[in-house]
Amino acid sequence: MDNKPVIGFIGIGVMGRSMAGHLLNAGYPLHVHNRTQAKAQDLLDKGAQWQDSPGKVAAVSDVIITIVGFPNDVEAVYLGDDGILVNARAGSTVIDMTTSCPDLAQKIAEQAKTKGISSFDAPVSGGDIGAREARLSIMVGGDVEVFEKIKPLFEIMGKNIVLQGPAGSGQHTKMCNQIAIASGMMAISEAMAYARKSGLKPETVLKSIESGAAGSWSLTNLAPRVLQGDFAPGFFVKHFIKDMKIAIGSAENMGLDLPGLQLAKQLYEKLADRGCEDDGTQALFKLYQDQL
Amino acid sequence: MDNKPVIGFIGIGVMGRSMAGHLLNAGYPLHVHNRTQAKAQDLLDKGAQWQDSPGKVAAVSDVIITIVGFPNDVEAVYLGDDGILVNARAGSTVIDMTTSCPDLAQKIAEQAKTKGISSFDAPVSGGDIGAREARLSIMVGGDVEVFEKIKPLFEIMGKNIVLQGPAGSGQHTKMCNQIAIASGMMAISEAMAYARKSGLKPETVLKSIESGAAGSWSLTNLAPRVLQGDFAPGFFVKHFIKDMKIAIGSAENMGLDLPGLQLAKQLYEKLADRGCEDDGTQALFKLYQDQL
Repeated sequence: MDNKPVIGFIGIGVMGRSMAGHLLNAGYPLHVHNRTQAKAQDLLDKGAQWQDSPGKVAAVSDVIITIVGFPNDVEAVYLGDDGILVNARAGSTVIDMTTSCPDLAQKIAEQAKTKGISSFDAPVSGGDIGAREARLSIMVGGDVEVFEKIKPLFEIMGKNIVLQGPAGSGQHTKMCNQIAIASGMMAISEAMAYARKSGLKPETVLKSIESGAAGSWSLTNLAPRVLQGDFAPGFFVKHFIKDMKIAIGSAENMGLDLPGLQLAKQLYEKLADRGCEDDGTQALFKLYQDQL
Repeated sequence: MDNKPVIGFIGIGVMGRSMAGHLLNAGYPLHVHNRTQAKAQDLLDKGAQWQDSPGKVAAVSDVIITIVGFPNDVEAVYLGDDGILVNARAGSTVIDMTTSCPDLAQKIAEQAKTKGISSFDAPVSGGDIGAREARLSIMVGGDVEVFEKIKPLFEIMGKNIVLQGPAGSGQHTKMCNQIAIASGMMAISEAMAYARKSGLKPETVLKSIESGAAGSWSLTNLAPRVLQGDFAPGFFVKHFIKDMKIAIGSAENMGLDLPGLQLAKQLYEKLADRGCEDDGTQALFKLYQDQL
């Protein structure tokens, strides 16, 4: 238990609270910062140290982990005046686990390198339940040698940890994940809308189709919730829209047209305009429900 | 083995050949008809009887099974002058396993009823491999009492046999299946295109995303083929377009707008215009490949 690196953790939201908690439970010294201090109280009660800014966290930590809201937040936390890169020590490692822009991840990695800091982008999938149960899939971009050293930290928070390539590769991989989910949500919404409109019993339809070529995680896990009128968030519509915007921006930068993703984003924005941005992603079905 | 009903089987294509073969192997007397007689030769060698027309098959059979190409073919085979309904005996049962129009299935069932014939629509999923291995999912529309009597026949051809409701319900369920697949194919094509364009190793991306919320049958089974440049048909582009047209027509009749399905159909038509109609459905990726 000796020689454990000191961990700094910035962003104690639904995900961060569970993830930082696992590190604390595993015996790592933990410094935390969050915009709203109250959300960190559980962790402080268990022995984490509060710091008043991202910079102060960085100054006392060997490994600094962040999971904040939007790319703007990532930029401020890393590149701001009282941010991480100004204050972190040479030889330290920074890991951004926010879902954010691939090019921002590359920019942070470049600036980090000039200061002798190793930088990783490592967004996750698996949601709040995955974070709580330490079963996250973690998609990592960064240097392979340092990756091997910090991998034990990832293994405390997740199950499926894959180094995808250099800086930005974690974010790009997460974009692939969100792109696949986006059209996939149209797929299940439209299939269930058709089922109900045509007078079928959609639950019985699932028995015929979910184990075959139409099968998906969403069909098995989200379609039954949709059919029960359960639109409670596993993953928020507003966060999904953020991710799709990042993916579309990134695809445009590369000169790649993704019409399915574009359509899904338009539909989700329509949904958000109706005041459903705090619903779960399965609420896409509501756009079709009007026609039933 | 006595008192087995005499089976008539019309449509000895890739699917029909395997399905009829299973019935023959199970000891059912079998009469067959196909547009091209040569395709039935295997079955004739094993003891099936050739008949020169759908009507002649119907006249000598207790249960008449069809799996032909397009709704027009279904209409001709059932409602034509030398078709099934004119020639089948009262008390017989007809089962159309073609993927076809729900309203045509209802029309056939209504006409069949006036002649004392029981009618089922029972399209399948599982493709040529499912047919060969008798592992098809069979989605059935028709009367529940007669269904129980003919279910043993379905069990010889498939594994997942579900009565979905009255006439037309099998076709409607198959449409749900195809609707879910349609946008799902955009999902995996766009995710893999993004992966490759962004310089990731798409095979490694799959390790991160296929077991989570982005996971699907298509991602696991078709994305690896796409990445190897393998566009050989499990299911033909041209047949998938047919199915999407039926689904869109049926949805329009019900007053249901399905933008994801519309977009998928447009993309597949673009693909067919490029001469790829005999590729497998995973060839949708080719539309994106131009941008890579």
